Amino acid sequence: MALIVDLPRNESGIATALDVLRQKLGEARVETGQALREQHGHTTTWLRNQPPDAVIFPQSTEEVQEIVRVCAEYRVPIIPFGTGTSLEGHVNAPAGGVTLDMSRMDRIVAVHPEDMDVVIQPGVTRKALNTHLRDTGLFFPVDPGADASLGGMAATSASGTNAVRYGTMKDNVLALTAVLPSGEVVKTASRARKTSAGYDLTRLIVGSEGTLGIISEMTLRLQGIPEAVSAATCSFPSVKDACDAVIATIQYGLPVARIELLDTLTVKGVNAYSKLSLPETPLLLLEFHGTEGGVAEQAEVFGEIAGEAGGTGFSFTTHEEERSRLWQARHDAYWASLGLRPGAKGISTDVCVPVSRLADCVAAAQDKAAEMGFVAPVVGHVGDGNFHVLLLIDVDNSQEIAAAENYIGWLNELAISMDGTCTGEHGIGQGKAGYLEAELGAGAMEMMAAIKRAVDPLNIFNPGKMRLPN
Amino acid sequence: MALIVDLPRNESGIATALDVLRQKLGEARVETGQALREQHGHTTTWLRNQPPDAVIFPQSTEEVQEIVRVCAEYRVPIIPFGTGTSLEGHVNAPAGGVTLDMSRMDRIVAVHPEDMDVVIQPGVTRKALNTHLRDTGLFFPVDPGADASLGGMAATSASGTNAVRYGTMKDNVLALTAVLPSGEVVKTASRARKTSAGYDLTRLIVGSEGTLGIISEMTLRLQGIPEAVSAATCSFPSVKDACDAVIATIQYGLPVARIELLDTLTVKGVNAYSKLSLPETPLLLLEFHGTEGGVAEQAEVFGEIAGEAGGTGFSFTTHEEERSRLWQARHDAYWASLGLRPGAKGISTDVCVPVSRLADCVAAAQDKAAEMGFVAPVVGHVGDGNFHVLLLIDVDNSQEIAAAENYIGWLNELAISMDGTCTGEHGIGQGKAGYLEAELGAGAMEMMAAIKRAVDPLNIFNPGKMRLPN
Repeated sequence: MALIVDLPRNESGIATALDVLRQKLGEARVETGQALREQHGHTTTWLRNQPPDAVIFPQSTEEVQEIVRVCAEYRVPIIPFGTGTSLEGHVNAPAGGVTLDMSRMDRIVAVHPEDMDVVIQPGVTRKALNTHLRDTGLFFPVDPGADASLGGMAATSASGTNAVRYGTMKDNVLALTAVLPSGEVVKTASRARKTSAGYDLTRLIVGSEGTLGIISEMTLRLQGIPEAVSAATCSFPSVKDACDAVIATIQYGLPVARIELLDTLTVKGVNAYSKLSLPETPLLLLEFHGTEGGVAEQAEVFGEIAGEAGGTGFSFTTHEEERSRLWQARHDAYWASLGLRPGAKGISTDVCVPVSRLADCVAAAQDKAAEMGFVAPVVGHVGDGNFHVLLLIDVDNSQEIAAAENYIGWLNELAISMDGTCTGEHGIGQGKAGYLEAELGAGAMEMMAAIKRAVDPLNIFNPGKMRLPN
Repeated sequence: MALIVDLPRNESGIATALDVLRQKLGEARVETGQALREQHGHTTTWLRNQPPDAVIFPQSTEEVQEIVRVCAEYRVPIIPFGTGTSLEGHVNAPAGGVTLDMSRMDRIVAVHPEDMDVVIQPGVTRKALNTHLRDTGLFFPVDPGADASLGGMAATSASGTNAVRYGTMKDNVLALTAVLPSGEVVKTASRARKTSAGYDLTRLIVGSEGTLGIISEMTLRLQGIPEAVSAATCSFPSVKDACDAVIATIQYGLPVARIELLDTLTVKGVNAYSKLSLPETPLLLLEFHGTEGGVAEQAEVFGEIAGEAGGTGFSFTTHEEERSRLWQARHDAYWASLGLRPGAKGISTDVCVPVSRLADCVAAAQDKAAEMGFVAPVVGHVGDGNFHVLLLIDVDNSQEIAAAENYIGWLNELAISMDGTCTGEHGIGQGKAGYLEAELGAGAMEMMAAIKRAVDPLNIFNPGKMRLPN
């Protein structure tokens, strides 16, 4: 099935709704310039851009409610938008409609240092939040790489390099408020650290990709900035050896804050790009957070474990500048990988498997990519069993695109056959909608669809994403 | 509103369903003896017992499906039952119906040491699981005190003393299968450590108190048994000083595994019961899990923090027998508290507030209890802001019961006014159904009700719990 499908458009409804919104909000607030609309469709991968009919930048929860009520009355789709860094077409408008760009709802409402939480509006980006928190000794840990909006990160259940220690957005959103398709506001939880009060609406809306509610406020858990940080790197003869070291490290109970894998091809790219001379074999990079004594001890214990798994060239440090040097390979990995095929665009897979299957899954993914002729470096959040193959393709070549689609489908199915998921952190959106049922079965699809119908009977919230049965 | 309400009974449906079930399963499998039925109603507090019409012990998921289909056809309530340790009437049958006692579905299906997870049936208790895991070096951390079934713990989103380190059931159930009111089975997730694939049905069913699905299998995250454990205790002049020490400890980033408060009255009870001579002021008890060097360092850092907050008599140890001695006060607290008023029954509150409000909330709770003439010791999982007032009452005295109900209602409302919850870990059930809307508002109630109607349109799964609007 095609990844990007145009859905039927409610032309007269859209026209009327835009007229009504212009009257309510003022002509200039309902923006319809082509460039702006296209910037609010999907722009980050090969997936075709499907721009909305209009873009509105709401300034308050009440405005979001007002816009939702108008769109509900005329049955017009609404697509919430953060920073547009989705990789799976979440922000496309396959049936047209109105995009709500939440970037102007970017207020930090309250910081509670004693409770280690913060209340924010959804348009705050993670870097802006951490800059704001700098003087409190606290930080928000979830780090997906991009400086995404926290609302968008919640909507796709994002995570990243330090999820192995601090969890994903599901673990770090304490409570939220959202505007439902009815225009009503729902508050999902109190600010208590734990609760058994009713259905967990927080985690139902986190990861729902804008299909159930538009997040208007969130309470996030914060972490103390660690007293000390250590970094370590170690090379391994094979991905299997590296994965064995990961398993042993986690079983040992070492509280790794990050544990990342670069495969041989990525290391080659990094050596070329950053003028390093790393051994051109798989590399693990780790970070530990804790007390001065603790992080040094932890890095050393890892060194022993790595040595038993065949690791060589183990290095570690607790000094900040040295840490940056050790981790340079990881920081440069994306751009260095693109350098492996100049002019190509990188398309990322996102499977996540039980850690015991990770080495097999990565090896099979590498073999298949080689067999199909792809240049395809691999980086992995290996403590969680999540890795990304970066397919370097010419997006103007339809044969390459078709081959990439085949490859991604093959890899998704392989991960599912290993009791894993097609998406560890990017979400379903449009790009992976064809794999959700294969992964979870008809029962889960029907339960999700029943929830969607109950909450959004008119199907106006981000239609066409996840493709639940009607 | 009365806590326990009898709901209309579908007499003819119940009679027919029991006949059909007898034919399908055999006469002896549909048990209707009065004693057994009463054992399967609520038995742990003052809440009135509402026994079901029959008890069945299913032996497989397929049998659960068969029973659900019969009950759906004749519109008969089904109540899932674990070990009956609920404190809020979750297992009562206010409209009669069939209780499914899951205790014979107690198979440990698969242990995956490399992935640090285990697949179990819902009737496995937490102690049975940890006994089974003993030789793997792994354990399941959630510890609510009672040796509850893991299915029941998931259904009520249980937690306990070490949630501050290891999280609650929401954080430790990776995936589950459940039988829905339609009789269909839903699989909520793969065995991957993290996922962004679709709505988080796992966490929707965890904490749903048997109102959405009957859990038939679960995949649980495991933890490595720590290399070393240290214990520490410290007395404080006041609850406020103890709470300040808790806040400072957590802000510092010390990875406490447990941090428990006993108030002065509880300490007095323990001294009498266990022949100890602890200073009769509030006491904090802590546990740290980690490496040999780490846990000693952490306990010592806590000692410094406690000293700054006015703590005295700080003791710590890494030796197992010494640890038991230091923690004896906590282990004996429940029975020692009952000794404060011989013959009385203990009724536990369960509010949870932001940690910054904890001292105020505990102090107000103590003052109010004193004012109303209750003997009411307090223990708290204070790292999470959760504490239990144990009201010692004569349950045969209707005036005391009425006063206790008033007290609990007053405390629930106080916690809610502090942006907390009426239930940190016991659930809503029948006992707290009157407080859910006050806590979350009409929007959340309506969203929960919409989900309930979508998944269970006949309202046959554990009716009368949470009391969502029709």
